[in-house]
Amino acid sequence: MTHNLDSLFRKDLPAPAQPWSGLAAFNFVGGNNDAESVPVADLAAAANRVLTDKGQLLATYGLGDGSQGYRPLRDFIAANLKRRAGLACGADDILVTGGSLQALDLVNAVFLEAGDTVIVEEATYGGSLTRFRRLGVEMVSLKVDDDGLSTEHLATILAELKARNVRPKFLYTIPTVQNPTGTVLGLERRQQLLRLAEEFDLMIFEDDCYADLQWTGERPPAIKALDESGRVVYCGSFSKSVAPALRVGYIVADWPVMRRLLPLKTDGGNGALEQMLLAEYAPAHFEAHVGALQKTLKRKCDTMIAALQEQFGAAAEFRVPKGGIFIWITLPVSVDTSKLAAAAIQEGVAINPGAEWSTDPESGRNSLRLCFGSPSLQTIRDGVARLAEICHRETGIPVRGANVVRGED
Amino acid sequence: MTHNLDSLFRKDLPAPAQPWSGLAAFNFVGGNNDAESVPVADLAAAANRVLTDKGQLLATYGLGDGSQGYRPLRDFIAANLKRRAGLACGADDILVTGGSLQALDLVNAVFLEAGDTVIVEEATYGGSLTRFRRLGVEMVSLKVDDDGLSTEHLATILAELKARNVRPKFLYTIPTVQNPTGTVLGLERRQQLLRLAEEFDLMIFEDDCYADLQWTGERPPAIKALDESGRVVYCGSFSKSVAPALRVGYIVADWPVMRRLLPLKTDGGNGALEQMLLAEYAPAHFEAHVGALQKTLKRKCDTMIAALQEQFGAAAEFRVPKGGIFIWITLPVSVDTSKLAAAAIQEGVAINPGAEWSTDPESGRNSLRLCFGSPSLQTIRDGVARLAEICHRETGIPVRGANVVRGED
Repeated sequence: MTHNLDSLFRKDLPAPAQPWSGLAAFNFVGGNNDAESVPVADLAAAANRVLTDKGQLLATYGLGDGSQGYRPLRDFIAANLKRRAGLACGADDILVTGGSLQALDLVNAVFLEAGDTVIVEEATYGGSLTRFRRLGVEMVSLKVDDDGLSTEHLATILAELKARNVRPKFLYTIPTVQNPTGTVLGLERRQQLLRLAEEFDLMIFEDDCYADLQWTGERPPAIKALDESGRVVYCGSFSKSVAPALRVGYIVADWPVMRRLLPLKTDGGNGALEQMLLAEYAPAHFEAHVGALQKTLKRKCDTMIAALQEQFGAAAEFRVPKGGIFIWITLPVSVDTSKLAAAAIQEGVAINPGAEWSTDPESGRNSLRLCFGSPSLQTIRDGVARLAEICHRETGIPVRGANVVRGED
Repeated sequence: MTHNLDSLFRKDLPAPAQPWSGLAAFNFVGGNNDAESVPVADLAAAANRVLTDKGQLLATYGLGDGSQGYRPLRDFIAANLKRRAGLACGADDILVTGGSLQALDLVNAVFLEAGDTVIVEEATYGGSLTRFRRLGVEMVSLKVDDDGLSTEHLATILAELKARNVRPKFLYTIPTVQNPTGTVLGLERRQQLLRLAEEFDLMIFEDDCYADLQWTGERPPAIKALDESGRVVYCGSFSKSVAPALRVGYIVADWPVMRRLLPLKTDGGNGALEQMLLAEYAPAHFEAHVGALQKTLKRKCDTMIAALQEQFGAAAEFRVPKGGIFIWITLPVSVDTSKLAAAAIQEGVAINPGAEWSTDPESGRNSLRLCFGSPSLQTIRDGVARLAEICHRETGIPVRGANVVRGED
């Protein structure tokens, strides 16, 4: 390269990428799922069938159904949301997206510009935090307890913002199997939340992409299902329930928002074959598949909890997740998990340091997220043991674990 | 909606969408392809096979191959570019994208900010023009003649910009089956272009998404194939050669650009099944399929040309396309094709008015683009006849056509 390329780049680009070096041997990051649970035979049969019957539709952008996505898939999503989340909507209220990540980008693009304020759970999805930061948006951190976001704290925040004449653009929340805490916001709090939203004229962006993986108790209705004034924009995904590499998510929004979203979706549609495949597969198989997947994931979750207790003992504090694929763990305040992550990846153990999953990075300094969806039971046991060894070596914590006092054997 | 939603939206959103009302009966817009040519049986067999053999890969984002896309597909793209475009590259130089549209967005996002200058062919893809306008980028219009972009005019432009101390971010060009003119930039001009690029230190963004559909003469090597200093970023697509609703395109870039593109690709990857399907289907079938598709499209092109000559006579000037799916037509200066398009859509005929496909909208005022890939031969004949009727009624042009003097029978 003889020319002056650097001077042509935008000035505000993120740090350059490193070449891909493969997945870690003990890969406890990312929303990857259990490979054995991918319903390979049913998907292959459905793909064969739908391509044979309707493959000619692929010659037309959007399969001739416009920019909101394949109509039969939207019909299934509507029926599924009614059944599983109590949410009454129709195909016209649904926009199919490339996973929930494109849903985040589109909703953000409609509402947010630099200097805006959003309210965000204190620990939340790292990909949402990087998006808000890159957009130059101010985040107000909302407390989460065992029952999800604190409506009491939200009331305080809203009153303070109002006193300062700041109108937040929305509350971004993951109410059902919250990422990373694994909590579920109960029905009563959902109702309180909507009362506060009415009082303070607050928009809510409900990210429900893990909700199909709740395996304890009864899944409460979506916040959007309880909303009577069109102030909730909802997104969901098949990434966690069927397969993450199938990039199929969706937004549910009333037309006043939908008509603003659609002109920003300039991608010529999302992968049509995946939409056709899901529309063919899901009506007959989704319920049974998700039921079986939940059992598999719960077994992995139980295995990780047992490994954490064995290896870290009392040094690792966590809530037992109510579903999903991750556990949020807090270590003693002396542990900096960003340093731990850097040391661990050198030895093949990948973890999410808490700072990257926290609205206020400092508050997540001694926390970490471990994902258990993809690794095998044995990899979970071995990887948590290795992580404990590395952590002990780097920080002296855990002092005890695996029934031995470390550093004395 | 009781709350004040409008005040929450960004201030600079495009006009809201209208509800989807279906495709026009005579649909001469959009990159849709010939439905009969979708290789349904081969695709169904490939999908069945690859899902059965490798479906478990879907449990992992990016199929475990990182953010550049499914490795076997990148291997095919590299081999195909070598064979068809003389472009030597490897899988590490390739980023799989959601059609070429995401390629445009990513390359733009690396280089462009408001106030920047790009050089653009005077008539070019409307989706690129809307992107540049939305980014607030200044466009300098470059003349196109029968042999593609004018290197003579480019030399003048580059000298003028240099005199004004303006360094353009890049030249955006569609050299092979230019959209909408259907021209092909010859080898000698490609070499001249690169000499100018060296002299003026110019980056080139080569959009080659129609190149596989060139059916006349010999396809020249890609500009990037002739580039020795890494100053060309290339994009291509399977949308036109296999099926547009399969959203699979790609960028070819050297690592200094690639490492800047990757951090901006925050979508969790593109549809993996479509990548797996193409990687399974294409090595055995791509060459034969594209050969057959070219014949089908050329027959449609010939039919449209005959219909234009019959219905519009000398009133419609156009170059015979060297491939692709569109014809760029210029009518007498008294015809405003934006008004014509508005009248025609009322009667089921959809056309692209030239203003939307022109760097300077005024210069395209009396031109239009007609796409022939999707409609049947009969629909092409009937639709062009109907368009001529509407045009005559609205503008008095064509005066003669279909062997009658219009308005006198």
